[in-house]
Amino acid sequence: MRKVNVPLGARSYEIHIAAGLLPWIGKACARLKLGARCAVVSDDEVAPRYAAAVQQSLRAAGFDSFLITVPHGEPAKRLQMAQRCFDELAEHRLERNSFILALGGGVVGDLAGFLAATYLRGLAFVQVPTTLLAQVDSSVGGKVGINLKAGKNLVGAFHQPRQVFCDLSALDTLPEREFRAGMAEVIKYGIIYDAQLFARLERDLPKLMRRDRANLGAVIARCCEIKAEVVGQDETESGLRAILNFGHTIGHAIEATAGYGKYLHGEAIAIGQVAAAHISCAVLGMREAEANRLEDLLAKTGLPTRIRLDARRRQQLLAAMKLDKKVSGGEVKFVLAKKIGAVETGHEVPREIIEHALAK
Amino acid sequence: MRKVNVPLGARSYEIHIAAGLLPWIGKACARLKLGARCAVVSDDEVAPRYAAAVQQSLRAAGFDSFLITVPHGEPAKRLQMAQRCFDELAEHRLERNSFILALGGGVVGDLAGFLAATYLRGLAFVQVPTTLLAQVDSSVGGKVGINLKAGKNLVGAFHQPRQVFCDLSALDTLPEREFRAGMAEVIKYGIIYDAQLFARLERDLPKLMRRDRANLGAVIARCCEIKAEVVGQDETESGLRAILNFGHTIGHAIEATAGYGKYLHGEAIAIGQVAAAHISCAVLGMREAEANRLEDLLAKTGLPTRIRLDARRRQQLLAAMKLDKKVSGGEVKFVLAKKIGAVETGHEVPREIIEHALAK
Repeated sequence: MRKVNVPLGARSYEIHIAAGLLPWIGKACARLKLGARCAVVSDDEVAPRYAAAVQQSLRAAGFDSFLITVPHGEPAKRLQMAQRCFDELAEHRLERNSFILALGGGVVGDLAGFLAATYLRGLAFVQVPTTLLAQVDSSVGGKVGINLKAGKNLVGAFHQPRQVFCDLSALDTLPEREFRAGMAEVIKYGIIYDAQLFARLERDLPKLMRRDRANLGAVIARCCEIKAEVVGQDETESGLRAILNFGHTIGHAIEATAGYGKYLHGEAIAIGQVAAAHISCAVLGMREAEANRLEDLLAKTGLPTRIRLDARRRQQLLAAMKLDKKVSGGEVKFVLAKKIGAVETGHEVPREIIEHALAK
Repeated sequence: MRKVNVPLGARSYEIHIAAGLLPWIGKACARLKLGARCAVVSDDEVAPRYAAAVQQSLRAAGFDSFLITVPHGEPAKRLQMAQRCFDELAEHRLERNSFILALGGGVVGDLAGFLAATYLRGLAFVQVPTTLLAQVDSSVGGKVGINLKAGKNLVGAFHQPRQVFCDLSALDTLPEREFRAGMAEVIKYGIIYDAQLFARLERDLPKLMRRDRANLGAVIARCCEIKAEVVGQDETESGLRAILNFGHTIGHAIEATAGYGKYLHGEAIAIGQVAAAHISCAVLGMREAEANRLEDLLAKTGLPTRIRLDARRRQQLLAAMKLDKKVSGGEVKFVLAKKIGAVETGHEVPREIIEHALAK
């Protein structure tokens, strides 16, 4: 088993990465000294596969869990669904020492984390991510939240989990499209932090796409390490943490304007990363060859890298960017790359350059 | 002007107490180094009286504010209203360095604080309480939240304000019933922490009820000092802070089962405090004479001290207590008094004693 520590003082926690972890979750939770009552939050695709195993493991360790199942997909991440879940938590008499366990992808983790951050002003929270994207990104670092009509994750909190369990076996049944979407975040870590990881991804892509466990485990652990290092230095995104948003300013705007659910998050940020790379060439002098390496790797992964926009859609997209949480003084701030493995935050970019990158 | 410091390390802040503070709010906010954009959240009774003065003061200090008005009263503290407010915050393009100013009573402060705690994962927050209850209690200490059908404040956060402005002039127009309700919390501080304050309230009650500013300012400042001391030692209620809940376990249950809005919060906790005092006599040996002093003072203030319950309502009330946030292991924990000025937390009370106290 691989272990990664997220160093946050009293709120530090471990990420465990291995195949076949689900039956061990109950025992591990018992070590965290959590209260007996627990809500397992999952979606209608993941719950039928894995909820029974998780609940049995919890029961064997002396926990009394109940299951809340939400519809799968991004539309579940809204306040109305949170309301329904809150009412269920109250009905099942969750207490201050109870905990919430998120079993599923990023949507489930973000929603369940928001419930945990706000129910009774904050409950303990355990992440069991079952998608590649959630394992390398959304389950680590404590960002939780829900969407508004106006934009993604506009309502939420920083609420760290007490532990994260990445079961590699859960990836076996992940639909191909979802797996590819997760690879978009994996590739992002190469761009923003680790040129060696990027080169490894170029080299080992076929093995990774076959979901070879040894390769996949090592790569997921490396992504978690990077995220842990970044979050450990800047938990609430006052500086460094913003590098994790490479490709996200445009990506979020694509998701918002296309209607949540049309593009998967990973697909939208694949397009966003390519656009950000082209902007980086124009603004920071990143070499075109490096931008092309990024686009090639994303394309080989089977991800979209461009978007066709008529003038009206382009205007909508630019307007949606202004709602991004990273906006300051009305100006959108971009994360841009100097080269593969090194990025800078806080760049204001002239509108023409953004439009030009999107028109490519 | 009286100033009280709430000592919370990097999150410390000041409470300013004086008559005629509203025109100075803009200047004071400028010293807090907040962003230019600001949402003023108020209700349809307070906004017509005071919002113009606050917004003009903000404008004069260079802030760009807009007003969100919610209906007055407890029913506004629900998720559906939060959703409407979130949409307005997004429409007005609030940014991470923007802030939210709560102008009103406890309902407005709790709702606006919940918006501030969660919009963009947390914005700065300023409290301008305009009721006695909000000035001595709900605006200080960072508890924010909304109600569920199942109970009060079940969803929320700890989110400290950056400053609190208690304008004594705002109390001039407070309806008599609301003023009395605020006195229930004032009296609570005497019971839980300060026998001298309690004796002063017994002595000066006529002056206070006439809203004599010198007396009122001193008493409000003392209540804020006590709350600041308690919160400074235990921000997230892992121990000491629970003493502030004296009378609240039964009080919250009364509010929930009577339908929010029938009893004002202060009225419900007046009844709750008297019941808690009788339980204290039975469990902790508090002297009956002291319990009677409490009941007399509340009654002289014009507050209800008893509730008539048929068997069905009594069962509902006992069930509602189990939903209280202070429940642990299925057991309701009471704050009980040894004598005026000294309480203890964490007491489990046999059901018959609770029923007996309620039947008095």
